Amino acid sequence: MSTIRGILETVLYADDLDAAERFYTGVLGLQRLGEGSALMRTFRVAREQVLLVFDPSVSEAAGRDVPSHGSRGDGHVALLVEAGALDDWRRRLEDAGCGVEQDVTWETLRGRSIYTRDPAGNSVELTEADIWAPRV
Amino acid sequence: MSTIRGILETVLYADDLDAAERFYTGVLGLQRLGEGSALMRTFRVAREQVLLVFDPSVSEAAGRDVPSHGSRGDGHVALLVEAGALDDWRRRLEDAGCGVEQDVTWETLRGRSIYTRDPAGNSVELTEADIWAPRV
Repeated sequence: MSTIRGILETVLYADDLDAAERFYTGVLGLQRLGEGSALMRTFRVAREQVLLVFDPSVSEAAGRDVPSHGSRGDGHVALLVEAGALDDWRRRLEDAGCGVEQDVTWETLRGRSIYTRDPAGNSVELTEADIWAPRV
Repeated sequence: MSTIRGILETVLYADDLDAAERFYTGVLGLQRLGEGSALMRTFRVAREQVLLVFDPSVSEAAGRDVPSHGSRGDGHVALLVEAGALDDWRRRLEDAGCGVEQDVTWETLRGRSIYTRDPAGNSVELTEADIWAPRV
């Protein structure tokens, strides 16, 4: 039986796509794909992994050429950084004026996470390992 | 400079987590991690990729041990399936009573996608290739 083999598109929503782009490219260093539009911005994260940020007032409209969707409220995403890089990332976020809302060392999971917010208020977690993997 | 190397956690929201679990495990065949709770369900999709489904009424509460978040409205995710498997997936969704809302062969991107909805109304796309990769 065929299986799901990965997540290609992870989605967040933001009313101000230009501000979102400044955060995801300028602060987090992701690569924007294409020119962007009033609908969305696309960012390459890894092979077969993109982050899409939509303006919900546009993406929720009926009659688009693909199914409509759109959420309000703070979403969440967790991004993987290189092992040992979280202290650098913490400084980088602070230098960019992005507060670190929380810095957690997991007891039940493995590893450590720091949390910031994108300009739309989405909770963005940076972590250096698959904290969901079984502990060995 | 350290780079983001992947998306570990992709998030959707659902008021009925049991219904979400039946869809993501029973229809899509994902593996649930842990027991789940009133807050969330966790599903393993691939190495270093999990799908988290939260009840927004719980995850948005203040005073949790991690930053709060929670969205209302239909989200979106795109999942990768094996090449050539979309017809099988279409049958599998239909057999499970999940309608295929749209079946798109991309002209500007590469590949084909089918779209269904999870029980909460989130738009779930299945596609067999990285439709965002440059065309060669």
